Amino acid sequence: MPESPRIIRRHTGNFLEDFRPGQTFRHKGGKTVTEGLFATFTEFAMTANPLAKNAHYARAYGYDGLVCPPGLAMLVAFSQTVEDVSENARANLEYIDMRFGAPVYVGDTIEVVTKVLHVRPSSSRPNLGIVHVQSTARKNVGADDEAVVMTWQRKVQVYKRDMDAELHAGEASPDEVACELWLPDYDRGANYGSRAHLSSPDSYFEDFEAGTRIEHSRGRTMTDEHIHLTAMLDNTSQVHCNQFMIDLDPKQYVGGKLIIFGGIPFVLCLGLSSPDIGDNSLGDIVYPTGRHTAPLFAGDTVFAATEINGLRDFPGRPDLGIVECRLLGHKFERSEGEPSDDAPEGWKKTGIFELDREIAIKRRSHYAG
Amino acid sequence: MPESPRIIRRHTGNFLEDFRPGQTFRHKGGKTVTEGLFATFTEFAMTANPLAKNAHYARAYGYDGLVCPPGLAMLVAFSQTVEDVSENARANLEYIDMRFGAPVYVGDTIEVVTKVLHVRPSSSRPNLGIVHVQSTARKNVGADDEAVVMTWQRKVQVYKRDMDAELHAGEASPDEVACELWLPDYDRGANYGSRAHLSSPDSYFEDFEAGTRIEHSRGRTMTDEHIHLTAMLDNTSQVHCNQFMIDLDPKQYVGGKLIIFGGIPFVLCLGLSSPDIGDNSLGDIVYPTGRHTAPLFAGDTVFAATEINGLRDFPGRPDLGIVECRLLGHKFERSEGEPSDDAPEGWKKTGIFELDREIAIKRRSHYAG
Amino acid sequence: MPESPRIIRRHTGNFLEDFRPGQTFRHKGGKTVTEGLFATFTEFAMTANPLAKNAHYARAYGYDGLVCPPGLAMLVAFSQTVEDVSENARANLEYIDMRFGAPVYVGDTIEVVTKVLHVRPSSSRPNLGIVHVQSTARKNVGADDEAVVMTWQRKVQVYKRDMDAELHAGEASPDEVACELWLPDYDRGANYGSRAHLSSPDSYFEDFEAGTRIEHSRGRTMTDEHIHLTAMLDNTSQVHCNQFMIDLDPKQYVGGKLIIFGGIPFVLCLGLSSPDIGDNSLGDIVYPTGRHTAPLFAGDTVFAATEINGLRDFPGRPDLGIVECRLLGHKFERSEGEPSDDAPEGWKKTGIFELDREIAIKRRSHYAG
Repeated sequence: MPESPRIIRRHTGNFLEDFRPGQTFRHKGGKTVTEGLFATFTEFAMTANPLAKNAHYARAYGYDGLVCPPGLAMLVAFSQTVEDVSENARANLEYIDMRFGAPVYVGDTIEVVTKVLHVRPSSSRPNLGIVHVQSTARKNVGADDEAVVMTWQRKVQVYKRDMDAELHAGEASPDEVACELWLPDYDRGANYGSRAHLSSPDSYFEDFEAGTRIEHSRGRTMTDEHIHLTAMLDNTSQVHCNQFMIDLDPKQYVGGKLIIFGGIPFVLCLGLSSPDIGDNSLGDIVYPTGRHTAPLFAGDTVFAATEINGLRDFPGRPDLGIVECRLLGHKFERSEGEPSDDAPEGWKKTGIFELDREIAIKRRSHYAG
Repeated sequence: MPESPRIIRRHTGNFLEDFRPGQTFRHKGGKTVTEGLFATFTEFAMTANPLAKNAHYARAYGYDGLVCPPGLAMLVAFSQTVEDVSENARANLEYIDMRFGAPVYVGDTIEVVTKVLHVRPSSSRPNLGIVHVQSTARKNVGADDEAVVMTWQRKVQVYKRDMDAELHAGEASPDEVACELWLPDYDRGANYGSRAHLSSPDSYFEDFEAGTRIEHSRGRTMTDEHIHLTAMLDNTSQVHCNQFMIDLDPKQYVGGKLIIFGGIPFVLCLGLSSPDIGDNSLGDIVYPTGRHTAPLFAGDTVFAATEINGLRDFPGRPDLGIVECRLLGHKFERSEGEPSDDAPEGWKKTGIFELDREIAIKRRSHYAG
Repeated sequence: MPESPRIIRRHTGNFLEDFRPGQTFRHKGGKTVTEGLFATFTEFAMTANPLAKNAHYARAYGYDGLVCPPGLAMLVAFSQTVEDVSENARANLEYIDMRFGAPVYVGDTIEVVTKVLHVRPSSSRPNLGIVHVQSTARKNVGADDEAVVMTWQRKVQVYKRDMDAELHAGEASPDEVACELWLPDYDRGANYGSRAHLSSPDSYFEDFEAGTRIEHSRGRTMTDEHIHLTAMLDNTSQVHCNQFMIDLDPKQYVGGKLIIFGGIPFVLCLGLSSPDIGDNSLGDIVYPTGRHTAPLFAGDTVFAATEINGLRDFPGRPDLGIVECRLLGHKFERSEGEPSDDAPEGWKKTGIFELDREIAIKRRSHYAG
């Protein structure tokens, strides 16, 4: 090396002023779902649905093998978009119209494309603004079993690099993406009842009642494992894994410390709700909207509840019903304020996550007869 | 949602008064052993037996591929029983007559059934009692290769929900379960010696001597990784993962902090002993009895020793012998008491785990000729 | 057990006086690369090369499937040598002539042989000395696809057990080992360009310029996850995982605490450099030399830079070029000394790792046309 090499500082990811409405990112990498990734995230979240745990059960239902739970499909697909869309983000603001299509199996390779819809400045913070994008994940692109596995929009709060840069104006329409939950046929000859003991006896469609709220019984404390988990997803956002960056200017960052990647509470809340809500599901159809309402840090314990908001028939599938519900994640924080009804004395309850869900749930009449 | 939804608090698991002698649980879920789960636990425990590490070696010995070490089979099978049997337990008291049958391979799916044998109150603590159960794990239920992989009894200390509830009386007999260690035939034509360098030269049957005690050289410090490991096993007991629950009433819980799931020191002690005791084994036959003698917490360093208690021929298998031994796990705790012979000054040695084992061990005469 | 069993204290690993020049170790165990191991380490290091992430891409390039990145091949092969060579080591001093051969796929089994070249005492520390060894890793020994995957030399600082023992004299020559990077043929009919969006647009051979230094943008904070990672590799060295041993005599150990296994920063630095340097690579050819220049501990954040030192044609492969470079890892430590140009105020920059690399990199002209 010469005495004074020319220094190249690589920046990764885009800043607010880089995004153009109508622009399309074909994200790098792609990701093959290995049994290692599958086990880590499915089991981390304590998913109770036997479709994701018991390959014999999954095949008896007409799937090719263990089925990735929706939270894992989401984590893999979402993370592919981070470098281009949110490596330089402060926070993810909203998930919109997240729909699921083909099942994701071990061995499938996910590739993702994102379209920029809109960019707007923050009204209060000149170094920030909001980018609105639409992303679509396909599996096995170019192969016979190529299929859309997910599509979603999100709004994300992104930093500017140059405070004086102009933002790209305009608005692009989201693409129409054919993405409908794939379901195995109901097979009158299959003896589903012989496997009914493998899922809960009281989480069939007939068991839900609109206007109720189910407090899920379990909690799960997060540790700094989140750094490793986030890396495993190829999520490269530095606010999750670069303590030195935080130490240099803590005030710049949410909570002044490493923040847990939002995908972690997303999938953990799905998992905590799973024994009560999801273990007789054949899939999540759509998340119309969702958002993180408070940050999560190592040491916090996550809890979840589900509000049942509506019950519908599933068109063309008398064996299934659709449960419309809202998943709510929360944690407790020490508090010296007034005691409240929803927290033990000395603590306050803080909502961390909200997600509207429509789930395809089996009817007991057809599966546990 | 209406203003005041009806709240449903889901309780999971059974309490002391819920168990009925003779009652049978067919546990939910089942669990397919993925390469992710296999790698995590086999490697966590530092198992030295090439049957669990080297697929070429395992196939040369007549197995279908990498073989789950007994500790992993136990972790998977045991954890399936937690929600029904010990989600509301304070401690696991005793393992009894734990026997191994068919080998467990990657891809096998484990399902478990448990029978309640006996329930009795605690003499000293009115909110606790002891449940005695028998569990049996099968793989690939309904398929051509369905087989019993393990059966065992255990006694577990479980909380009551209602202090005034009556306990169910009576006693059920354990079922007779055919569960004998599957062993590949000894193949005179196989050139076992060509692979003898892959295991220790001094852990054949001929190397053991009754009345000796082997102090295994390695220690392993546990971290809060145990929370993640326990979740990967679908073990839902809250005392391992819910810090908020502990914070609300620390005195109620062993040590006033998150306790490490007993399956972790169980498998770790097996692993620590493995280079000296287990790497020329073709399988563990039976654990007549075992128990945890002190809790393990994050930060503790685990050590192990093995007492060789007896040596027997293996009926019908001149290539093998049976080693009867006792595996002992311990840790060291700071101490201001009298110095003792078995700990450095300022420390005391605390036993954490005891397990009687009978192991099928290769004879050098047949495998390293 | 009798009252006073005979105690056997098993020592594992060799001490300085045990090594004989010319001696050969056929290391125990061997290790099959599972999808669990593959996912854990490839993803931990945030490798950006699609060959290790996207099975469709890898097969389109002529590989059999996902390809282990060189850092993972190195971790698996190196760790197999630890028990015999460096279980009783204080530090690994130097890597020499580390060359790569056949690609390693999931399912391959690695076995390693080591030859002792030279042993010499430390001039300043009587309880230490240096062992110089050559190791060679083969996959699928005895099978049709047996192949050398790596060969390397290293110098390691090892403790003596007996201060008065004589060291074995003499010097053995390294074996000639045929180990050349396997490369898939360039296929004129393949439509590489259709997948060019899956890797960086600016990391082709044409993009590199000798005399430049690339500061890679990302940092990654290490946690005590390193204990678990090291166990997964079957690396049994106690200085990485036995806190009790450290607590008994902290001054004896580097930094007075658990030190992170050098393979971890090795692979992490490769990963951090990967988006800029390695994601259009078809493989690392050779690491002529490398060394750890400071220890790494839990809590440190790792950064990396690469100096481009030379550019050469790849003989017989007009589609490729060879980039000669030096990978440099560093961390920042709090400092009250004089401010320096290369660290923020109050911090100093500490180099932790240096590795000379020659990499086979695709030319844009042939792959992104």
